[in-house]
Amino acid sequence: MSAVNGSIGKRELRVGIVGAGIMGADHVQRISTRTAGATVASVVEPDRDRAMSVASTAPGAQPRVTLEDALEHDDLDAVIIASPGPFHEAAVLTALDARVAILCEKPLTPSSEGSRRLVETEMAADRARIQVGFMRRFDREYVALRQLVESRGAGELLLLHCAHRNPSTPPGYTESMLITDSVVHELDIVPWLAGSPVVSVEVLRTRRNRRAPEGVSEPQLVLLELANGVLAEVEISVNLGFGYQVTTEAVFEEGVAQIGRTAGLTLWSAGSARVAEHPGYVGRFVEAYDLEVQAWVNAARRGGIGGPSAWDGYLAALASEAAVEAQQSGRRVAVRSEAMPAFYG
Amino acid sequence: MSAVNGSIGKRELRVGIVGAGIMGADHVQRISTRTAGATVASVVEPDRDRAMSVASTAPGAQPRVTLEDALEHDDLDAVIIASPGPFHEAAVLTALDARVAILCEKPLTPSSEGSRRLVETEMAADRARIQVGFMRRFDREYVALRQLVESRGAGELLLLHCAHRNPSTPPGYTESMLITDSVVHELDIVPWLAGSPVVSVEVLRTRRNRRAPEGVSEPQLVLLELANGVLAEVEISVNLGFGYQVTTEAVFEEGVAQIGRTAGLTLWSAGSARVAEHPGYVGRFVEAYDLEVQAWVNAARRGGIGGPSAWDGYLAALASEAAVEAQQSGRRVAVRSEAMPAFYG
Amino acid sequence: MSAVNGSIGKRELRVGIVGAGIMGADHVQRISTRTAGATVASVVEPDRDRAMSVASTAPGAQPRVTLEDALEHDDLDAVIIASPGPFHEAAVLTALDARVAILCEKPLTPSSEGSRRLVETEMAADRARIQVGFMRRFDREYVALRQLVESRGAGELLLLHCAHRNPSTPPGYTESMLITDSVVHELDIVPWLAGSPVVSVEVLRTRRNRRAPEGVSEPQLVLLELANGVLAEVEISVNLGFGYQVTTEAVFEEGVAQIGRTAGLTLWSAGSARVAEHPGYVGRFVEAYDLEVQAWVNAARRGGIGGPSAWDGYLAALASEAAVEAQQSGRRVAVRSEAMPAFYG
Amino acid sequence: MSAVNGSIGKRELRVGIVGAGIMGADHVQRISTRTAGATVASVVEPDRDRAMSVASTAPGAQPRVTLEDALEHDDLDAVIIASPGPFHEAAVLTALDARVAILCEKPLTPSSEGSRRLVETEMAADRARIQVGFMRRFDREYVALRQLVESRGAGELLLLHCAHRNPSTPPGYTESMLITDSVVHELDIVPWLAGSPVVSVEVLRTRRNRRAPEGVSEPQLVLLELANGVLAEVEISVNLGFGYQVTTEAVFEEGVAQIGRTAGLTLWSAGSARVAEHPGYVGRFVEAYDLEVQAWVNAARRGGIGGPSAWDGYLAALASEAAVEAQQSGRRVAVRSEAMPAFYG
Repeated sequence: MSAVNGSIGKRELRVGIVGAGIMGADHVQRISTRTAGATVASVVEPDRDRAMSVASTAPGAQPRVTLEDALEHDDLDAVIIASPGPFHEAAVLTALDARVAILCEKPLTPSSEGSRRLVETEMAADRARIQVGFMRRFDREYVALRQLVESRGAGELLLLHCAHRNPSTPPGYTESMLITDSVVHELDIVPWLAGSPVVSVEVLRTRRNRRAPEGVSEPQLVLLELANGVLAEVEISVNLGFGYQVTTEAVFEEGVAQIGRTAGLTLWSAGSARVAEHPGYVGRFVEAYDLEVQAWVNAARRGGIGGPSAWDGYLAALASEAAVEAQQSGRRVAVRSEAMPAFYG
Repeated sequence: MSAVNGSIGKRELRVGIVGAGIMGADHVQRISTRTAGATVASVVEPDRDRAMSVASTAPGAQPRVTLEDALEHDDLDAVIIASPGPFHEAAVLTALDARVAILCEKPLTPSSEGSRRLVETEMAADRARIQVGFMRRFDREYVALRQLVESRGAGELLLLHCAHRNPSTPPGYTESMLITDSVVHELDIVPWLAGSPVVSVEVLRTRRNRRAPEGVSEPQLVLLELANGVLAEVEISVNLGFGYQVTTEAVFEEGVAQIGRTAGLTLWSAGSARVAEHPGYVGRFVEAYDLEVQAWVNAARRGGIGGPSAWDGYLAALASEAAVEAQQSGRRVAVRSEAMPAFYG
Repeated sequence: MSAVNGSIGKRELRVGIVGAGIMGADHVQRISTRTAGATVASVVEPDRDRAMSVASTAPGAQPRVTLEDALEHDDLDAVIIASPGPFHEAAVLTALDARVAILCEKPLTPSSEGSRRLVETEMAADRARIQVGFMRRFDREYVALRQLVESRGAGELLLLHCAHRNPSTPPGYTESMLITDSVVHELDIVPWLAGSPVVSVEVLRTRRNRRAPEGVSEPQLVLLELANGVLAEVEISVNLGFGYQVTTEAVFEEGVAQIGRTAGLTLWSAGSARVAEHPGYVGRFVEAYDLEVQAWVNAARRGGIGGPSAWDGYLAALASEAAVEAQQSGRRVAVRSEAMPAFYG
Repeated sequence: MSAVNGSIGKRELRVGIVGAGIMGADHVQRISTRTAGATVASVVEPDRDRAMSVASTAPGAQPRVTLEDALEHDDLDAVIIASPGPFHEAAVLTALDARVAILCEKPLTPSSEGSRRLVETEMAADRARIQVGFMRRFDREYVALRQLVESRGAGELLLLHCAHRNPSTPPGYTESMLITDSVVHELDIVPWLAGSPVVSVEVLRTRRNRRAPEGVSEPQLVLLELANGVLAEVEISVNLGFGYQVTTEAVFEEGVAQIGRTAGLTLWSAGSARVAEHPGYVGRFVEAYDLEVQAWVNAARRGGIGGPSAWDGYLAALASEAAVEAQQSGRRVAVRSEAMPAFYG
């Protein structure tokens, strides 16, 4: 990208999608069928057959086995990194080196050290290029709740009750994934809602769901203490069967607000009134993903980012490490506090 | 009852229950287990075994085959008439003659002529003794809606959408019973809510539910025009299977109000959020029946009535006859208008 | 458009927006900021200042005073017609002549004769190019309700209760606009939901809202009889103040379904639980408009249409004329029935 | 009461109400106007004017300054103790000595030692006479939730989220009253719902509501660990202003259930849909109180109790003491465990 100030002007953003799993394939569809100003130029995936299969769904997209190949041949302006977490750091470094815009799915990296390295590499360049895929910040109800907090329309925020419920876990699921796969979303969204960072984490156990895989005891209750005194508790339950449910109840000085309730067509039949729950995260957050990617594309075309930064990803990684330690130790664990560099201000 | 002004003072009201079907047996339980100031003295039922069986559930209650027997032997202060409609007129006349307090289940009588005769007989005595069992007037949500109408808190009432939905019909059900069994409730409650009498009725048909018995085409849409210009439409559907549902949506000049929605424990399981619907009218209106009977007992002990009068029953009978004619003719039918006698003022 | 079969291949669709009022400006934003595969090439508006102002919000869009100018200079593949209804016919004819793809806001034309002429002109060409802007067909809840009808998951559809509620009317509002501006949406969506055309219309009046402009008596109740026997009633209320609300309750043989209820953040404060209602149609149907336009763009790039056709617009115009006649006469009015030409099959 | 087995047979239960504050006066109304089989014989209150004023609302009730007076003169069968907590022990002992039926409002006594003494005194007699006023056990939704737990209809219960929200605190409110006045209800209902006793308590603080009185930091989060491993957390917030709200969300192995949501008339006006929240506990639990007192009267007439026993009151007192200690110390505190005597089996 040789454009002045990083802007590509009126031209469409040429995007490479790194990773052709469920999420990557979903982004290919999003970019090619419902995002303005962007086109899928490459699908990068080490499994060449899968790369070809996914690329064939987007007119003009090239299947590539490595990101380097894509950067060399496809004139990319931007990449969406949707490969597994352990591969994020290398891909982001390659993309930073190529000076393209980056949307990296969460977590930015599995460890805070990796995120710290990305932050430092990014800060050595002229401007921020990394946006992290915490899509909840684009969900209309989360946005409405944050506005209520900021407006103090019901007084100061005092307490948050969050619930994160999944129908079932995939093979190979381990207990720390309760934090790193799921609660990591709350580790970003809670400070964003409350306007204050997490300072400590504690994890409580309750009676074990026998539907959980061997070696995993869940549900768990994760308690987050924020710098402004607000307590947030996060119920994480991942084998409840009935659907994918993410809710937040916020207690203010003069009221209570709730988001995330099941809505839509109500059917009275067979003795009850029923509303379908979302079966998975794709449906639950489809609009948030669309808004997130559109905001990123719009910002990337102007040479910037339009959502959570690498610094936000780093803070979430720090809190996630503390939460895993709290989960294993049964103790309250402090979260390292760091002042945000002016680069991200 | 020889008491001055009809008051029985501190003594408990001795009540005879006429009719020991589902409704009569329910009233026996209500009076004997959750009504203050009343006791069941007689259970009157031509089927002697059934009379004995139901009477045995209330300590001190005597089984009787005729109302005359009960009046002669059981020192009754009051009767609840829960026998089939065609028997109401004779029972009410007998009770009026004995000068006891009367709660007569709806309809007061099947025909307006019968109700007219009861009104005239009652008016020949010193005071009103007949209360008609339109229990919806005691339902908390109907009361709240009426208060909203009267307070003009959302401006003038303009339009009412009512729905009356039953799970299924009993053997022997005929089409006119849509009006005389079900819509008759709306023929009382709609003018009560709107503060204005029904002046015309029209009945519209829609696609027939194949679950309806032979010869019955339902759902139907009953259109009521009130004297103050308000239009009320009543959907009557009696074979929907899923439960018993009675709802009202009221359109005001500055808003819309709705009552009757399913509430209670919400269960998220198997892909949806569910709230149980009431299976029948007993559960749906249990509190309204309790409040109705308590209000009647309290008023009867003081020598009066505490709810809809024989005049209200007569007006409902007039509207019901017009509605049946409208149902059969397909035409709009005027409802005879009569000024309320001062006796009922 | 010289492409084989009308397909423009991988290239972006160059769209001219005709009319730069609220709706036109909204489409300019939609196309330029959140629609894949399309770009705004022209903004056509007789008020040149307004044309320039709106065009300036979309990179590369040219302000034009006439559609002919835009077609001559801007290499258009497609037009969205969002000018006032009386101008639709001429604009659509010009666009048909230019063989570009057309999305025409409702109503297709104010009179059925105009729509009939458009249908005939279109049928003289090789394929359908006109899509009509009945965006409700793209609303997720309407789609879910239609699927429930088609699947017979609750038995056959029997009856529809529709409500269309607006906060207030603009200056110059006349009574027939209740039909032509608002109920026209139900005149399309009701047959679409029920899978059967409207065969007659009747309009009932209720007590007048004093907030309505002089000479307008509303709310009204519009009764639609469908060919399959289903009755649909539409409450139209346009001065209720509280918000924009469009709901449908569908009665099936074995249940009842409802769509359109207020959802989102619930706030308990000051004595009640509250959920914000949509203030206007833009917010209520924002996602439906987005999906509609995206579906149209995707279809247009392949040379077809992706939603309701000119024939659907013609049927709605026929029903709308009957409804206005019913409104004025107080009588039930038959809707002319015509077999759909194979061209639209 | 000289009756065989304590049964008073068909006669009405003669009840003395001890304490004529808000709760006592409410019980006078309940017994005299909507409870079957009972009559208010005495109103006992040291403030003679208040005793007379409240007694005058119930026909036949005598004002008394001491319970001993009432027992001597009014032929009492039963007492409801609604005086302040510190006076409960002496009143219950007097009533036990008189061998009358007892309904004692919560807490049974402020300290577990007092409750222990009452349990021991009661066990020295022939049968249980003390029922404790944990009325939530009679609330229809709590009953439904307990049935769901017991039926395992959604699998085993795993976790409970409870919220107890009051609009404001009275003068003289101290922090420990969060436990002793409010959370004490959950200390009874949580083990009742889960079928397992509380084994430890911990109290967490969050950001303080500035509406709380000086010296009181609330909301607080009370964590209860049950013997079966279930964790229950109770949010206690007592100055939220908007109303009185008591909710429970229960996480099961295969679903989630919720009770306590605001229901009733929904009003769409001024931009939102609103449902009124209960202003106080009387309205929220009016039906539960009625059912509780009726169950107690019915049981007392047969010589027994019909709800939570003195042993339940003692267990709640033990848990309450532990919770106050946890609140003050900031530590997790074990709750003393004791096997239930066969007397209460």
